[in-house]
Amino acid sequence: MKAEITCVGTELLLGHTVNTDATIIARKLAELGVDLEWIQTVGDNPDRLGEALKTALGRADLVVTSGGLGPTGDDLTKETVARLAGLPLLPDPDSEKALREYFGSRPIGANQFKQILMPKGAAVFKNAVGTAPGCAVPFGGGKYVVVLPGPPGELEPMLNNEVVPFIKKLVGATIHSVQARAFGIGEGAAAEKLAELFDGENPTVATYAGEGEVSVKITAKAESEAEAKKLIEPVLAKTLARIGDFVYGIDTSGLEYALVTELIKRQKTIALAESCTGGLVAKRITDVPGASAVFGYGVVAYANSAKEKALEISAEILARVGAVSPEVAGLMAKNVRSYASADIGVGVTGIAGPDGGTAQKPVGLVYVGVAFEDVLAVGEIKPLGKYLGRAWTRRLASNRALDLARRLLLGLPVDDLGAGFKVEKRLLKWGGDFGFRPKKLK
Amino acid sequence: MKAEITCVGTELLLGHTVNTDATIIARKLAELGVDLEWIQTVGDNPDRLGEALKTALGRADLVVTSGGLGPTGDDLTKETVARLAGLPLLPDPDSEKALREYFGSRPIGANQFKQILMPKGAAVFKNAVGTAPGCAVPFGGGKYVVVLPGPPGELEPMLNNEVVPFIKKLVGATIHSVQARAFGIGEGAAAEKLAELFDGENPTVATYAGEGEVSVKITAKAESEAEAKKLIEPVLAKTLARIGDFVYGIDTSGLEYALVTELIKRQKTIALAESCTGGLVAKRITDVPGASAVFGYGVVAYANSAKEKALEISAEILARVGAVSPEVAGLMAKNVRSYASADIGVGVTGIAGPDGGTAQKPVGLVYVGVAFEDVLAVGEIKPLGKYLGRAWTRRLASNRALDLARRLLLGLPVDDLGAGFKVEKRLLKWGGDFGFRPKKLK
Repeated sequence: MKAEITCVGTELLLGHTVNTDATIIARKLAELGVDLEWIQTVGDNPDRLGEALKTALGRADLVVTSGGLGPTGDDLTKETVARLAGLPLLPDPDSEKALREYFGSRPIGANQFKQILMPKGAAVFKNAVGTAPGCAVPFGGGKYVVVLPGPPGELEPMLNNEVVPFIKKLVGATIHSVQARAFGIGEGAAAEKLAELFDGENPTVATYAGEGEVSVKITAKAESEAEAKKLIEPVLAKTLARIGDFVYGIDTSGLEYALVTELIKRQKTIALAESCTGGLVAKRITDVPGASAVFGYGVVAYANSAKEKALEISAEILARVGAVSPEVAGLMAKNVRSYASADIGVGVTGIAGPDGGTAQKPVGLVYVGVAFEDVLAVGEIKPLGKYLGRAWTRRLASNRALDLARRLLLGLPVDDLGAGFKVEKRLLKWGGDFGFRPKKLK
Repeated sequence: MKAEITCVGTELLLGHTVNTDATIIARKLAELGVDLEWIQTVGDNPDRLGEALKTALGRADLVVTSGGLGPTGDDLTKETVARLAGLPLLPDPDSEKALREYFGSRPIGANQFKQILMPKGAAVFKNAVGTAPGCAVPFGGGKYVVVLPGPPGELEPMLNNEVVPFIKKLVGATIHSVQARAFGIGEGAAAEKLAELFDGENPTVATYAGEGEVSVKITAKAESEAEAKKLIEPVLAKTLARIGDFVYGIDTSGLEYALVTELIKRQKTIALAESCTGGLVAKRITDVPGASAVFGYGVVAYANSAKEKALEISAEILARVGAVSPEVAGLMAKNVRSYASADIGVGVTGIAGPDGGTAQKPVGLVYVGVAFEDVLAVGEIKPLGKYLGRAWTRRLASNRALDLARRLLLGLPVDDLGAGFKVEKRLLKWGGDFGFRPKKLK
């Protein structure tokens, strides 16, 4: 079944409101296995709305609109749809009852009353939150225009509770997806390795990139969820066989979630010492609800004086090798672990830019240290090409830190973690002199 | 001039990505005085894209596309536009040079190379962030299709730096805007106070809300920038007369930028002690390039043990009044300032949720302490209505902390800072017993 979305609202054309309605509806249609080929957005203008709907009905079986259902004179979606369908607008008895309850003893104005006028023969959708019900208007030949309110807080419950069952009846199948999340591989490289999987029609496979990560989404359509899962299984196995070294989780929300989940499972704790990321790694760890079970202490040692005082890294070392060095990243990891009596210590130091780079230590250079059990691993993020900005550099550094900590925790290899990241591992000898041995470490 | 937007990307039709590009472009067109009547979104499908562009060019003078410029085989926007215009694709010398710089010594694949092929005669727009340049393709009769990359982080700088001057030339007038950024007032309340200003046609006034803040944008169109500024001046003065108490900056990038700028100007330093915000305040301060001049040390004391060890808050106090209390927020601020020898100390402690709340201390309750000179101010964020989630709670807490620090630094009043935030101020007596005097503080 083919669908289109038509969004109505001048505020969308002025850029005052982000069109989250379209995303909410699109996601739901994808889950239902309905092909969405087109989204149109027009203002509160009945002529252009009429033209948009005519065009959409010419291409699709199902057109979902959002917006233009309220009480003001600008709200003309239902009127326009009824006119197009050649149907009169009549009061819907259930909606009228709900509206009278909502208003209690207060009088109901004509504008309010027009919200419960429905095209004759339409299926009416209750509004659990606001006063404007939605509806599905038949256009013959199995075609429908589904009319939904604009505010996402009203649209979303109506969509989930009323519209999804309506569409499921039209479609007659179940959709299920899983998402494999990967880090350390580019979207291009992932797509190359997975190329042959993209041709499948059921399940379908698609890659998405964002914030330096890649997601692979596998979606199947079947009679039941169990059957859909069975269709997904071999394709997921093939995905993992090809890019599994980079996959850090299935249906997880991000690297920080993957790490915190594993720490909780293993009852291990983590402590953080950050310089160039300036609290970003701690912020991401504590984005995860329940992180307090595994994270208690982090320090943002932005200045050298803070590295001396809070992390006991001597002024002599800082002067000799510089704050941005594998040695200092390693010491930050080792010393913060010891200070906080944690199982894992993480240190991040680098040059986020845009200023502060030198020929030897260019902007974008970052060292990430992780101490776990008797191992200290220090990775170097070498800026390969163009400097992509302060935010990007810090995000990447935090990704590398979270990923390296997760890999050491799980005993995964750290030798080949993708472009521009080289990791060296050394044994930590507690009580020994490891703390500062630049010749061995680098 | 009439414009349309055509967004390209299957991820938009699957609901994987919210279409912020359309909002970014729409807002900019509104600022430039260009009428936007239609937004279309299609997938990575050249036939449908071609149809969408033909339709759009039939209705408008300017069509702006986003997406489909990357290196993969799906990225076909430029190819489709060139075919429609009947123009060959040729390598653009400047873009080729930039691409070679970007890749450094790494090899450039054919897919990468196709990004710098441009329709013959197009105006090329540099990509300051990524590898795919944009362009404006002439269609005759003064009509153009402007082709922009999909990632908002690439699109927005290209739009501001390259496309706006291009469109200004087409429009033939100078547009100038200023943006007053406010915190502590809701969009509804701001709009009410500014109501009469919205009717003006030149300059126009519009409010935008986001991340708990409100922006007021004043835009004027004139023959020159100087004239536009002259038109804006009295309207900005009226805006500040009405909501100036909440305005923290004009044309600034956020509360953290406003604070860091003032710290640098006054040569004052800040130290941070965070519990529920978990590094978010430090992250935001260090988002600002050059923050190292005023920020050297922050501690994320998430666990009580960390508050004891790193902030010298006794177990006895923590047990007696609880970690989420005005006393502990005050001690965190006072003690971190002293530890780091900073001018300002900030402490944040609260319950970000979703779990961990009690009847006395509900989820969403946060205390923010700021110590500056001989004053300690502690503010309470009381959850007023529905709990809006962990991320929202943490964001609001960080906003309150940044704003309170800025207000104390500038000597601004802190008595009436908007919904649900009550601040008490006490004199700090160094060497005295202020550290813990619960009866006086609350």
